[in-house]
Amino acid sequence: MTVIEDIAEMQRWHDAQPIVLVPTMGALHSGHGQLIRHGRELAGDGGSLVVSIFVNPTQFGPGEDFDAYPRAFDDDCTLCKEAGANLVFHPSADQMYHGDASITVAENSLTETLCGPSRPGHFDGVCTVVAKLFNIVRPDIAVFGKKDYQQLAVLRRMGRDLNFPIDIVGAETVREDGGLAMSSRNRYLSSEERNQAPAIRKALLAMAESNELGAPARIEIGREILAKEAPLGKIDYLEIVDRETMGKVERITRPALAAAAVFFDGARLIDNIEIMP
Amino acid sequence: MTVIEDIAEMQRWHDAQPIVLVPTMGALHSGHGQLIRHGRELAGDGGSLVVSIFVNPTQFGPGEDFDAYPRAFDDDCTLCKEAGANLVFHPSADQMYHGDASITVAENSLTETLCGPSRPGHFDGVCTVVAKLFNIVRPDIAVFGKKDYQQLAVLRRMGRDLNFPIDIVGAETVREDGGLAMSSRNRYLSSEERNQAPAIRKALLAMAESNELGAPARIEIGREILAKEAPLGKIDYLEIVDRETMGKVERITRPALAAAAVFFDGARLIDNIEIMP
Repeated sequence: MTVIEDIAEMQRWHDAQPIVLVPTMGALHSGHGQLIRHGRELAGDGGSLVVSIFVNPTQFGPGEDFDAYPRAFDDDCTLCKEAGANLVFHPSADQMYHGDASITVAENSLTETLCGPSRPGHFDGVCTVVAKLFNIVRPDIAVFGKKDYQQLAVLRRMGRDLNFPIDIVGAETVREDGGLAMSSRNRYLSSEERNQAPAIRKALLAMAESNELGAPARIEIGREILAKEAPLGKIDYLEIVDRETMGKVERITRPALAAAAVFFDGARLIDNIEIMP
Repeated sequence: MTVIEDIAEMQRWHDAQPIVLVPTMGALHSGHGQLIRHGRELAGDGGSLVVSIFVNPTQFGPGEDFDAYPRAFDDDCTLCKEAGANLVFHPSADQMYHGDASITVAENSLTETLCGPSRPGHFDGVCTVVAKLFNIVRPDIAVFGKKDYQQLAVLRRMGRDLNFPIDIVGAETVREDGGLAMSSRNRYLSSEERNQAPAIRKALLAMAESNELGAPARIEIGREILAKEAPLGKIDYLEIVDRETMGKVERITRPALAAAAVFFDGARLIDNIEIMP
């Protein structure tokens, strides 16, 4: 497995086709392992699998955990190699962003719900860095986890609206025993918070399974479960949205998504579940 | 010479390398002819020269001349062929923009001067459509005219900040006898306006040649020439800016640009001249 830290070297790199990119911020866990193995399957024996590891400063807002975000490059490389990556792209922030950088890729519709209002500027940072990675790595396929479902929808929209010739693939969320979605931020939970966090999944499952009910009643069911089983958590949002537009829905007549964000003292956790009409 | 109107067909198209792109809005005149011939030289005998013709609605503001902007596709194709193009890409607006398009590429520094304040949203429209064309045509080199110097600087910045692997080349402005910069909009001038319009070039030349003077004194010289020789024109701006950052300068200590925009009844005209310290 090769490691490249230089943008120009990465752009010159050409290898077997197709090229599959799995963008990450490092601190890889078995959820990422699953993403990377999925990428390996998509690349096939003859293709190339690139994992980028870059903690992107522009997608963290003021007061968010950029400085504290975990870094573990050597362990990350071991995991990438074991999961079948051909190349790890690991640029420095100085190289990625000129001091006078002034171009932003912004999305103004799908980001109006869920994490958008809670994290101003976050999705602009995500779109901009992913556009850069697309132009640097020039993949044929890019894989993103469904845990960050809104991010996946926004990046699909970016791919469509800017005509990136890249197939954007969503990969299933990997969960710990008990159902908590794997996240690099789970390590910040106290043991009591970790005991309560699986209630997020339980609430979302109940919202998905409440056949015949409209969205407000489903959300109320979710709120009750969280209030009872995760009293240390403060709900940021609990919503049911259209799976493509991320717009709030009253009744589920098209593929929808139940999505949650919950603040614990240690970390803000998100999760979601797909709902069919 | 091939004409392609379909985005997917354009993206599938592969031809001899390098691919050189000359983006235009059509209504081609001999200034474009020069751009295209310059592109032909850059492509060489073995490369491919693509001219895109697309009147981009998103770069026209409310009250600007989108509907009136001249269209002359058959003549344009003749000129492209004579100037050595291999392919004309001519998509429809419906194909370029989904009804719910929601991604914008924005520049927030170089656009704060000159045409930026006069044309809100213009450069966002330019950056977004050029990013799309870059992803559709995937050129190695793209050629833009220096008449739209701020546009050239903004697109260089976009290329740098989004890591497009594309060499962005500026081509010299072509002028009519008397010095008026060629523009598709010149056809809208009355004969009296056309007689006065060369004063823009004369003012800029005087500003460039006023050795030892600072920017404010040079601008005053330019204003006096325009007041005297183009009384039908209303100055939108007359400025001296840094050639890379487009920031206003007081003294010329780095490569600079004298730039003008003048409203006539028939059309708003722009022009500029490079100044060395």
